Amino acid sequence: MENIIPETLSKVVEEISRLPGYGEKSAQRLAVNILNMPRGEALDLIKTFMQLLEKVHPCKECGIYTEDELCPICTSEDRDRSVICVVEESFDAFAIERTGKFNGLYHIIGGRLSPLEEITPEDLNIDSLIERVDRLPVKEVILATNPTVEGEATASYIYNLLKDKNITISRIGYGLPFGAVLENADDFTLSKALEHKTPL
Amino acid sequence: MENIIPETLSKVVEEISRLPGYGEKSAQRLAVNILNMPRGEALDLIKTFMQLLEKVHPCKECGIYTEDELCPICTSEDRDRSVICVVEESFDAFAIERTGKFNGLYHIIGGRLSPLEEITPEDLNIDSLIERVDRLPVKEVILATNPTVEGEATASYIYNLLKDKNITISRIGYGLPFGAVLENADDFTLSKALEHKTPL
Repeated sequence: MENIIPETLSKVVEEISRLPGYGEKSAQRLAVNILNMPRGEALDLIKTFMQLLEKVHPCKECGIYTEDELCPICTSEDRDRSVICVVEESFDAFAIERTGKFNGLYHIIGGRLSPLEEITPEDLNIDSLIERVDRLPVKEVILATNPTVEGEATASYIYNLLKDKNITISRIGYGLPFGAVLENADDFTLSKALEHKTPL
Repeated sequence: MENIIPETLSKVVEEISRLPGYGEKSAQRLAVNILNMPRGEALDLIKTFMQLLEKVHPCKECGIYTEDELCPICTSEDRDRSVICVVEESFDAFAIERTGKFNGLYHIIGGRLSPLEEITPEDLNIDSLIERVDRLPVKEVILATNPTVEGEATASYIYNLLKDKNITISRIGYGLPFGAVLENADDFTLSKALEHKTPL
């Protein structure tokens, strides 16, 4: 028996399987799906990925993924600059935007505290949140990290850093069952969760 | 409310979500995982994908993914050219190779018949299988499509095309529970399935 898997294929599978949520089998599946596509379509997909990396980066102010230096929310004159909603990832903010129930600013911390994955406060954009709270006319911070063990721990950690400042600190909560992932919530549940936020 | 998702990000999510097994959420997850990687690593991944598309293609003889014109199995002098094992995808053949229990040739048909997905015999490499059976000194064809509804239908379809030729036609079977996916089977189950193949 010899190893008959082409080297480039092994390499791409190994690299994909290092992504969070991917194992060897799902990485194989993605590689084969791309190989099975008509070559032209596959090349277009790879080129779109390349453009994604060239054009999209975090907003210098809030960290949301954008094609400009500052995102449309940070530059908008219609947004309420006294409220900051703290979320783990850009797609959490995109999901909240879809509800149309929030008109403040966002802050993307870029993940959640996780001792298992060795993610510490230094790996997250928490310093820049504190700096924004001090600089902007902020009256309220809504902690909208995911209602998971790690998300709750992250919310508590941020609460402790903010609790002595003279602002309201809320936790998104009502309507989201424990263990759920915010990004996957339906719009109604997410609207309820914003409506029934509870002061900490 | 305005759409704040960057255009390139929407585009990549839309393209990924057209891949089999991907929905909008899993496509978002992949796009964000790649954006969250250090840029250098992400670019390396994209470059590896590009190499994959440049270097890897189906073997001209059996259809297995390889970096050469003919794969190492088709060019090997140690393989038994009287047995062809028919599988849906290259990774099914890679999985069978790992068991070390099969020393014949392969034929990759590139999928399975599926009326729902509009995959007809013309979309699969079945003509080239018949041509190989006629050309090579084949004594046996093992039909190792997945033991799913579509895989069984595909095996039956091929069986009917081969049954009047003077060869043994077997179906991989023993040890694989119905509804399972061959690529995900453990090596032991896969070895048993080869050992207990049943003539049709």
